[in-house]
Amino acid sequence: MNRPKARLPRGFRDRGPAEIAAERAVLETVRRVYESYGFSALETPAFEYTDALGKFLPDVDRPNEGVFSLQDDDGQWLSLRYDLTAPLARYVAANFQHLTKPFRRYQLGPVWRNEKPGPGRFREFLQFDADTVGSASPSADAELLMMLADTLEALGLKRGEYIVKLNNRKLLDGVIETAGIRLDDRARRGTVMRAIDKLDRLGIEGVKALLGKGRKDESGDFTKGAELGDEAIGSVLMFVVSKEPIIQNSYEATHSQISYAISKSEIGKVGLSEIDAIHSILRSCGYGNDRIRFDTGIVRGLDYYTGPVFEAQLTFPVQNEAGETVVFGSVAGGGRYDDLVARFTGQQVPATGVSIGVSRLISALASRGLSAASQPLVVVTVMDKADAAASFQTVAELRAAGLRAEAYVGTGKFGDQMKYADRRGAAIAVIEGGDERARGEVTLKDLALGAELAKSVESRAAWTANRQAQFSVRRADLVAEIKKLLSGRS
Amino acid sequence: MNRPKARLPRGFRDRGPAEIAAERAVLETVRRVYESYGFSALETPAFEYTDALGKFLPDVDRPNEGVFSLQDDDGQWLSLRYDLTAPLARYVAANFQHLTKPFRRYQLGPVWRNEKPGPGRFREFLQFDADTVGSASPSADAELLMMLADTLEALGLKRGEYIVKLNNRKLLDGVIETAGIRLDDRARRGTVMRAIDKLDRLGIEGVKALLGKGRKDESGDFTKGAELGDEAIGSVLMFVVSKEPIIQNSYEATHSQISYAISKSEIGKVGLSEIDAIHSILRSCGYGNDRIRFDTGIVRGLDYYTGPVFEAQLTFPVQNEAGETVVFGSVAGGGRYDDLVARFTGQQVPATGVSIGVSRLISALASRGLSAASQPLVVVTVMDKADAAASFQTVAELRAAGLRAEAYVGTGKFGDQMKYADRRGAAIAVIEGGDERARGEVTLKDLALGAELAKSVESRAAWTANRQAQFSVRRADLVAEIKKLLSGRS
Repeated sequence: MNRPKARLPRGFRDRGPAEIAAERAVLETVRRVYESYGFSALETPAFEYTDALGKFLPDVDRPNEGVFSLQDDDGQWLSLRYDLTAPLARYVAANFQHLTKPFRRYQLGPVWRNEKPGPGRFREFLQFDADTVGSASPSADAELLMMLADTLEALGLKRGEYIVKLNNRKLLDGVIETAGIRLDDRARRGTVMRAIDKLDRLGIEGVKALLGKGRKDESGDFTKGAELGDEAIGSVLMFVVSKEPIIQNSYEATHSQISYAISKSEIGKVGLSEIDAIHSILRSCGYGNDRIRFDTGIVRGLDYYTGPVFEAQLTFPVQNEAGETVVFGSVAGGGRYDDLVARFTGQQVPATGVSIGVSRLISALASRGLSAASQPLVVVTVMDKADAAASFQTVAELRAAGLRAEAYVGTGKFGDQMKYADRRGAAIAVIEGGDERARGEVTLKDLALGAELAKSVESRAAWTANRQAQFSVRRADLVAEIKKLLSGRS
Repeated sequence: MNRPKARLPRGFRDRGPAEIAAERAVLETVRRVYESYGFSALETPAFEYTDALGKFLPDVDRPNEGVFSLQDDDGQWLSLRYDLTAPLARYVAANFQHLTKPFRRYQLGPVWRNEKPGPGRFREFLQFDADTVGSASPSADAELLMMLADTLEALGLKRGEYIVKLNNRKLLDGVIETAGIRLDDRARRGTVMRAIDKLDRLGIEGVKALLGKGRKDESGDFTKGAELGDEAIGSVLMFVVSKEPIIQNSYEATHSQISYAISKSEIGKVGLSEIDAIHSILRSCGYGNDRIRFDTGIVRGLDYYTGPVFEAQLTFPVQNEAGETVVFGSVAGGGRYDDLVARFTGQQVPATGVSIGVSRLISALASRGLSAASQPLVVVTVMDKADAAASFQTVAELRAAGLRAEAYVGTGKFGDQMKYADRRGAAIAVIEGGDERARGEVTLKDLALGAELAKSVESRAAWTANRQAQFSVRRADLVAEIKKLLSGRS
């Protein structure tokens, strides 16, 4: 007989109660903050027509371009969404006449990427987006930045543990134009963008080489540079270095440096005035450099950004997979994209949005001990089969009192039932034998204590001083005794 | 230029804030009840390997058998899950050694069916399942039935508005065996099952014809029957008619009728003893015939059920798409399936579960006025662009007081902003002009009142007696005044 093998598809995963509970708590907090800002929920389906989805994935190196696609029976190609922005653009274009503008929606849902799976890199993951469509005002960008900072704090992160960074693609274009490259020279423009993006990794000298003739890396591979002249390189570097630490201290000083670096570009000047407007709102509302900061090093990979771009980073150290201590890094990003709806309608619709990478954020919070605790479980044993009904009556009583409780529904003997309760991580087992019942009593077993006793001899003394692992209580006091035990008193 | 058309794929849909809020409230309630019963959350990915998923869909009439499938780049076929039971079987088989048994999990998530879309019939929809794996005890089935009834009541349905019905596939097999058909004669067994399933539609005479030579329908089409003899037909009908109204009044009377109908079948007797055990638990726990009822008419379409089967039905009348008044019908179903894990391992693992069809349940609740209300929105206008920061300060203050508030982030003039607030369905607009600000005042516009005034002349008098549509308040009293207005006092 040919049996299928029970196995997970490559790059996918199952998730259990602890992870789901932590995620639910995080999503509920994000949702609450987004709702309080006036954003409204929208859901779009998993599938979109492939042509409607468009191609906006960065770093695509796979046959069907990073998405899961299949042909419908009418011959049209369908793809699973790879983000929540492309479906939003489709939704806005399809419903444009009826939408109240600015249209402000949030969306939470899984997205799929047909990419090579790797450690911690999955082909299905959650995104949580908020976008404002139909407003060109910098106040719409400023609001998203504040909302992002508020969200991270609502999740329990403290100031200094996170930073929301802001830049503007128009400034990058302004620098490139000022350096003498035409914006429609996409190849050289891309080379400069990538060079700027590598500041963290290669340092000033590396970026300088990539802006000039090129750079040979440690393996000997040569990357061709943008071949800028010295003055152009100087103005790009002026832009790049205005990142740290000047910005942190004085927006005005940075402003004048940037002004110089974009001095020959109209689009650059527009970009700077947008940053000014955002900056002014942030400061008036009390969001200082400790929460939201202008940072010329932020590029964001996606092609579709046209103005302000932002990224939320967590600044505390964590261990990476190789055991090295690193800064946690980006958990959310976004920016302004004014052309996505125009793909469908030809009409430019200004839009700005932010997307949270939920899994990364949750693992970051877990590393700070900010995960949600789950409700303790009470398991009621069944001493003989004919007694199942009595156990069900008991759990119904416990549930009515707000407790989480189950009767044992397996067919194992008493020892199996206790093992079950232990392995489920139950806090308390309730044992109700026939004799006891006749006396109007019931036995409680404190499984947390049992586990503690098994762990160490020292803690044993402390615990047993206050608590017994197993004891009888009056049946009438069952709920009260369990609540006492759960609240930590004996 | 060749632009894509912005359109939803066939059989899929977008969903807005009201529907999502209603759904969230329902899911949260179901989750709370399931958690309180001790079930724990599990999530599996959207994709499974096609061979691991198996083929358990009923009524499959499409090329790739009702599922969305595609080939991974290593040549293996992937399919989107069509339910949550097949992934559970895969999960249990893959992790069998490490699972605490009985394994009790709930799962919520979208499933996909590659079926012909129709009105109200979508290719992506939510299911909410709970299953107990690893217990052959009827107490596991009884628990699911009670949990289902508790869930429907927690959602606000009253007794008499719903009924959970229970039957047993083993009884059906017992009837078939007693009627002289071998259980491995799948064709005739199927004919009898389908005949029983049609009682509601065709009545006793129709079922009788289908059990005998066959039946000609109104269009003249002839359906071949099971060709049973008179005595056999008699015992099947005895089983079928024990459904109503006897069961409702006396389990004992029904029991003896069923006993007769399955008298020649061992498997039938096992089925009846299971029903007895479930019945005993239900009655001891106080779940009477008004909530959970034995009903021989419940068949459930899926092939994999092996024992008790159940279905939750809503009993109140609703209008169907054709404008006819009908009983709402099934919103959840399930049963015992002991062979799903054996597909992988060869080892039979007893399991029982229930699945809620979330969309149907939500539309049922909506028709009873049991939907969740969303939090009222306050829109703060922006009188001139330079004032955006002031408006953001105001909304931050409102949010800090627990209100849902947004500053207008569009670029429209005052009239556009008021229209925006109206169309967003905002309850209140806050208008903060420069003169007012100088006086320490702010204007509130009661948009609910505005809408009411526009609606009717009669209500106008009543409303205006208590409320003004627009009035000034002291800036310092803003939060208090808004809360007063929202709570309905003037």
